Amino acid sequence: MPSFVETPVTTEIPGPVSRASTKRLDAIFDARAVHFVVDYNKSNGNYIVDVDGNKYLDVYAQIASIPVGYNNTTLIEAAKSPEMASALVNRPAVGNFPSDQWVDILRDGLMKVAPKGLSYIFTAQSGSEANELAYKAAFMLYRRRQRGDGVEWTEEETKSCLNNAKPGSPEMAIMSFQNSFHGRGFGSLSTTRSKAVHKLDIPSFNWPQAPFPALKYPLAQHAEENAAEEKRCLEEVERIITSWHCPVAGLIVEPIQSEGGDNHASPSFFQGLRDITKKLGVALIADEVQTGFGATGSFWGHDHWNLTSPPDMVTFSKKAQTAGYFFGNEQLIPDKAYRQFNTWIGDPARVIMCKAVIKEILDKKLVEQTARVGSLLYNQLETLAAKHPEYIQNLRGKNQGHFIAFDTKDPASLVRSMRAIGVNIGTCGINTVRLRPMLIFEETHIPILVNALDKVIGAL
Amino acid sequence: MPSFVETPVTTEIPGPVSRASTKRLDAIFDARAVHFVVDYNKSNGNYIVDVDGNKYLDVYAQIASIPVGYNNTTLIEAAKSPEMASALVNRPAVGNFPSDQWVDILRDGLMKVAPKGLSYIFTAQSGSEANELAYKAAFMLYRRRQRGDGVEWTEEETKSCLNNAKPGSPEMAIMSFQNSFHGRGFGSLSTTRSKAVHKLDIPSFNWPQAPFPALKYPLAQHAEENAAEEKRCLEEVERIITSWHCPVAGLIVEPIQSEGGDNHASPSFFQGLRDITKKLGVALIADEVQTGFGATGSFWGHDHWNLTSPPDMVTFSKKAQTAGYFFGNEQLIPDKAYRQFNTWIGDPARVIMCKAVIKEILDKKLVEQTARVGSLLYNQLETLAAKHPEYIQNLRGKNQGHFIAFDTKDPASLVRSMRAIGVNIGTCGINTVRLRPMLIFEETHIPILVNALDKVIGAL
Repeated sequence: MPSFVETPVTTEIPGPVSRASTKRLDAIFDARAVHFVVDYNKSNGNYIVDVDGNKYLDVYAQIASIPVGYNNTTLIEAAKSPEMASALVNRPAVGNFPSDQWVDILRDGLMKVAPKGLSYIFTAQSGSEANELAYKAAFMLYRRRQRGDGVEWTEEETKSCLNNAKPGSPEMAIMSFQNSFHGRGFGSLSTTRSKAVHKLDIPSFNWPQAPFPALKYPLAQHAEENAAEEKRCLEEVERIITSWHCPVAGLIVEPIQSEGGDNHASPSFFQGLRDITKKLGVALIADEVQTGFGATGSFWGHDHWNLTSPPDMVTFSKKAQTAGYFFGNEQLIPDKAYRQFNTWIGDPARVIMCKAVIKEILDKKLVEQTARVGSLLYNQLETLAAKHPEYIQNLRGKNQGHFIAFDTKDPASLVRSMRAIGVNIGTCGINTVRLRPMLIFEETHIPILVNALDKVIGAL
Repeated sequence: MPSFVETPVTTEIPGPVSRASTKRLDAIFDARAVHFVVDYNKSNGNYIVDVDGNKYLDVYAQIASIPVGYNNTTLIEAAKSPEMASALVNRPAVGNFPSDQWVDILRDGLMKVAPKGLSYIFTAQSGSEANELAYKAAFMLYRRRQRGDGVEWTEEETKSCLNNAKPGSPEMAIMSFQNSFHGRGFGSLSTTRSKAVHKLDIPSFNWPQAPFPALKYPLAQHAEENAAEEKRCLEEVERIITSWHCPVAGLIVEPIQSEGGDNHASPSFFQGLRDITKKLGVALIADEVQTGFGATGSFWGHDHWNLTSPPDMVTFSKKAQTAGYFFGNEQLIPDKAYRQFNTWIGDPARVIMCKAVIKEILDKKLVEQTARVGSLLYNQLETLAAKHPEYIQNLRGKNQGHFIAFDTKDPASLVRSMRAIGVNIGTCGINTVRLRPMLIFEETHIPILVNALDKVIGAL
């Protein structure tokens, strides 16, 4: 069993070939965020190879979005299928002219993993778009209930909305949590509360944010405080919704706040959210863009909540390789066609890739693998944290697959040092390192990651 | 030369197989807008074939988004390339970990057709997203000029923006025109002014709209009135920008308002917009989502404007089979990395398809073909309009390729009758029929379309 990546990193990072390629790119495309340039033909499974020949165990996976490994053979087969060629060449306006395969692509793919209780799907192209579509559905549902089923739109409504004015364009809100990340469109960004670099200078809606529980670790030692903190946050959620200056039509929450620092809450907190939103007629939207598709050791992050009734909508993207939202309530289908609509409504080519991802996850039992390997990884990191208590703090993600994170003094420097010895990891929040392995991360990869962390931290 | 599609339509539309497929789909996916279900394997070139075996000359082309025909061989080659398989299977976070091919995919594709004066590109996944990214760039540029180059963000700014509050989240606006369509996200929808069905019940920003010239046809007979109308609209644009309650950072305009009814304006109107926006420091955004990629007989719709300095940004989607925006001013690259950013930043698979589309357009001289065939088509429609003056009114699109439209009494019924004899066309605005052929529409297709129109209108 190798302790490190076999082919060591042999250049500085980025290496000279990466730098030259990035320089060419930067003349036409903002390349300031490029970490290194990748040779995807040489990358395989859990390993990413850059154009300078450096090989890394990839525990960041394209910002948590590679599901089943580079050059996965099941995915290559889907990519080379005649069905795919047709989807790429004959891109349909899927709401008007779907192909005869479309219904089966959905049934044999996304609908196989639909969250319990949610029987409809709307496809999209990004997590940000998926969330905005869910917000629109929530607003239309809220107004439908106010207006009454079957009540026709008034002329005042249809005229005023064209002028962005009431009553057709009403003041309503989506609530989100402090430190949340829900995307970068004007609606989704209005619910994102993570970092100034995402939001500065962009006009936003006057929508409310609630505090997200700030849990103390280790959880077992702070059970009482943490329960009180969650109770406080739930009270705030209810207080803000009922006192906001306009109706709150929806509440969006990540099962684990990812970009904002890998912040967790207990199942009882989420059960409380379901109770409050149900009582107040607010649509509960689970943003599973980062947690969905198996990363937390269950297929959906909200499976951990043990709800008695499901969220109203569940959005997804990243590991799904496509995007969209599931829902169960028929009334979330608007009263007229063309209200929730756009030219492409997602991309069948990407939905075909998603079907292949789902097949691979189910065939190879990758959710079970993630739970099993994640648990072992967590235990080893717990041991490492005990060895380096100054550098590995607030370890979190127990029983959440390998959706694991910890705080450290200088995460950017730690990430750089890890890359220099062949392990690619990421950061989030202010001082957090996040591990985002692919679902095919195995037992054999644990020592590579843990030994590298031990070496880098030991040298600090 | 056939007068109609060779294989006639043999069932009602949608036919029984279409209806059965749509019913299955509707159980999981809102299928109320489905016109018919398509057999894309049997569709070819300008012809679309439904699952009941009906064959139509497709003059709507997936809401103006099929560029070079169904099952185009150049596109099939691109779809089956090893480069494509890798792009589909190894989807990168392109801002962090681009492939070594990415720069050349852009250079040999999109940058070959970059509008004059615009040397940078940002990729996206839909026209709506492209427009919102352009709005964000406009807002950041406006604030950069206010703040001063190199001036650091204040703590008040970075803190307040997380709360969606001033000064970090400032009140600023994007201006658009009455009857415009710019997409369905919360920002783009705030600039869309076409129909209530697009906007009702969705909260929007208090952004201004200006009147778009309502030209009278035939243009030659109303030159003086039309010039006065355009002057009035330009004056309104300037008046509204300078009197709006908050800064107007950008103005977005379609070269031809498409969804809103195929409304045209003269080059001098657009020159006026460029002059006003330049004077007032407002970014001018040309929304070429429907007009771009050759449909108007020039590669870009705004090529017809004969500007002395280019628009600040040009957005595209639809026929490009991917989306994004071009720009020229380096200051539209934000002062820091990660401000204009998201996980995927478009989809390299779709950008590869776009490269193939561009190759096909340039190799086959399809822009020249569109200009030539469009001119012949316009002339024949002019003759037909003289024959049926009650049913073909305000014919427009002269010298705009085959981007042609006319008003009629009952466009929905005309479209249904046309489908019944094997020609698929679309509507827009309130009483407009729009023709949106593919770029490969040829002289031989003109009589099929024109004879079908003649027959349908003659039977009214």
